Amino acid sequence: MPVGTAATVKAVPQDVLEELGVEILLGNTYHLYLRPGIEQVRGLGGLHRFMAWPRAILTDSGGFQVFSLSALTKVTEEGVRFRSHLDGASHFFTPESAMQAQIGLGADIIMAFDECTEYPADAVRTRASMEMTLRWAERSKAYFEGHKNEVPWGGSQLSAVSSQQKHVLRFAQDDKPQQDMAGKTQALFGIVQGGMDRELRRESALRTVEIGFPGYAIGGLSVGEPRELTREIVESTLEYLPKDKPRYLMGVGTPEEIALYAGMGVDMMDCVLPTRAARHGLLFTSEGRVSIKQARYAEDAGPLDPACSCLVCQRYSRAYLRHLYAANELLAQVLNTVHNLHFYLETMRRVRAEIQNMSRE
Amino acid sequence: MPVGTAATVKAVPQDVLEELGVEILLGNTYHLYLRPGIEQVRGLGGLHRFMAWPRAILTDSGGFQVFSLSALTKVTEEGVRFRSHLDGASHFFTPESAMQAQIGLGADIIMAFDECTEYPADAVRTRASMEMTLRWAERSKAYFEGHKNEVPWGGSQLSAVSSQQKHVLRFAQDDKPQQDMAGKTQALFGIVQGGMDRELRRESALRTVEIGFPGYAIGGLSVGEPRELTREIVESTLEYLPKDKPRYLMGVGTPEEIALYAGMGVDMMDCVLPTRAARHGLLFTSEGRVSIKQARYAEDAGPLDPACSCLVCQRYSRAYLRHLYAANELLAQVLNTVHNLHFYLETMRRVRAEIQNMSRE
Repeated sequence: MPVGTAATVKAVPQDVLEELGVEILLGNTYHLYLRPGIEQVRGLGGLHRFMAWPRAILTDSGGFQVFSLSALTKVTEEGVRFRSHLDGASHFFTPESAMQAQIGLGADIIMAFDECTEYPADAVRTRASMEMTLRWAERSKAYFEGHKNEVPWGGSQLSAVSSQQKHVLRFAQDDKPQQDMAGKTQALFGIVQGGMDRELRRESALRTVEIGFPGYAIGGLSVGEPRELTREIVESTLEYLPKDKPRYLMGVGTPEEIALYAGMGVDMMDCVLPTRAARHGLLFTSEGRVSIKQARYAEDAGPLDPACSCLVCQRYSRAYLRHLYAANELLAQVLNTVHNLHFYLETMRRVRAEIQNMSRE
Repeated sequence: MPVGTAATVKAVPQDVLEELGVEILLGNTYHLYLRPGIEQVRGLGGLHRFMAWPRAILTDSGGFQVFSLSALTKVTEEGVRFRSHLDGASHFFTPESAMQAQIGLGADIIMAFDECTEYPADAVRTRASMEMTLRWAERSKAYFEGHKNEVPWGGSQLSAVSSQQKHVLRFAQDDKPQQDMAGKTQALFGIVQGGMDRELRRESALRTVEIGFPGYAIGGLSVGEPRELTREIVESTLEYLPKDKPRYLMGVGTPEEIALYAGMGVDMMDCVLPTRAARHGLLFTSEGRVSIKQARYAEDAGPLDPACSCLVCQRYSRAYLRHLYAANELLAQVLNTVHNLHFYLETMRRVRAEIQNMSRE
């Protein structure tokens, strides 16, 4: 899932995301809550309508960003008080308010409010944090069950909004008619925590499954631990998550990692790496990483990746991409992001094809 | 002509420019000379190949930017010494070196090296500046005639380059086969100066025509003078420029102005206004200017311009565009620029249709 933090995958228009084959993208509840605000997005018909994106969206719970981006965070059993990274204003997130926010945004998949345990953390702290995440999961589910009919989809995810508007926007016309959405609602996923302790991970997984969700995420990884440890924890946690439900590994990873984890049974991943690296001139290719700012590419007339079929590699040279980056041109960020997203999506398409081939044999 | 200063119309990929119907764009010799450098562009097959743009390109002479962007400019009969706005390095432009640079870039239309007379300027200064521009026009033409076969087009503007590369880039495949370019070369346009003095403008026009060029530009306007004065000078200058050659008004203007001047007989114009204004959130619409940053658009679900058929107005709401701008998102600059370019190109398409209708009646 490409990350579209503030209702945009940075620098890439939605029609290009469609052409790239993006099926689902991620929005950050923390950012959207602060700007433009939940009520504004709800009033405009929800996130799909607001950003003119008819395909699937997942929103995170906001918990991770509260811990990583905001200042003066104070956690209690009730929830988390924090200051906005934009203007310093004080806000309070609880499992209930995080659900309320995500229902207002109206993504297809929403996430339980959890505490992302810091790394490293001792055994006592890790258990206490895991136990609170389990209590918050129950509160998240209870609130969601009581309010899931408040999702701003109306009869249809799209028609409810277009009826508010004089002008029917393009995607509502072009896309296949949506099935009647009456009675349908979002899918709330639970999140497994437990730090780097395999036994706590097992317990967290089993007890989260006992609460019962239509999908499960593994959170609290990629927080600074060695990659080998990440792999071990993912492997041991997956064992306790049902295979017939989506299993989502949060915040991972490199192209090699997403192939590895998909092979181990992970169904969904998200990471800012392809888009953020692109904006810093770091490009993923079939021949390895390319740092396009390097002077060695200044006269290189070849494509970025000779094996790549993306519109950037089909049209532009390394010399041109290097020039755009060196000249700090906006087009550098557009083209670099398009290429990296294509590389990631191709990686996943290849993994899916391999899995299908294996299951046929 | 949209302005593509550094071999890119800021924020807009070339395939989108094609979809918008851009037939010709402008590159700035001053910028390209400093970065990435003429020899690099020439070595990569010229500007068309470098920026993967198969349609027409015009480059300016660099003179205007030398005066407006660089520091410590010193003008002599020989040429202009200036310091780069990028790193302060000292450079020297002459009519000959400006031609050499533009031949190396290989645009379809190139411009004589002129001095853009400052505003205001007294009669003595204006005449002296005009006389020097005339001498520079002769030197520009003489150098061009002696070196026009050095344009990096090879047998074909495109094939010369693709033969240097293993990979045939997309536009070389998609576009119609170019006619054999052997023996063909660039068109060098002369530039009329003469400040705000109608008599000097007449003299400059007549003497520039006497030197003889395949097209003529009116320079030295939009330099701070009142708009009514611009109109008067354009009108009186056009009278002395041949109707069967392209007449190009440099650096103009607003949507109203380009319609006005096209109606008066101007064939070509360029201006940074649509692209630069877009990046500052100022959008041109059929209902007038819209400053999209204003809070009044925060909950406006309608399109930017209900009468506009561009991909931005067909898909996104004012509320979304306002959010992107307020959140300083890159996509704001992409979408705003696409819309403003569409508005300008539509304005010119309408003017052309009106002229065709009038000539039929």
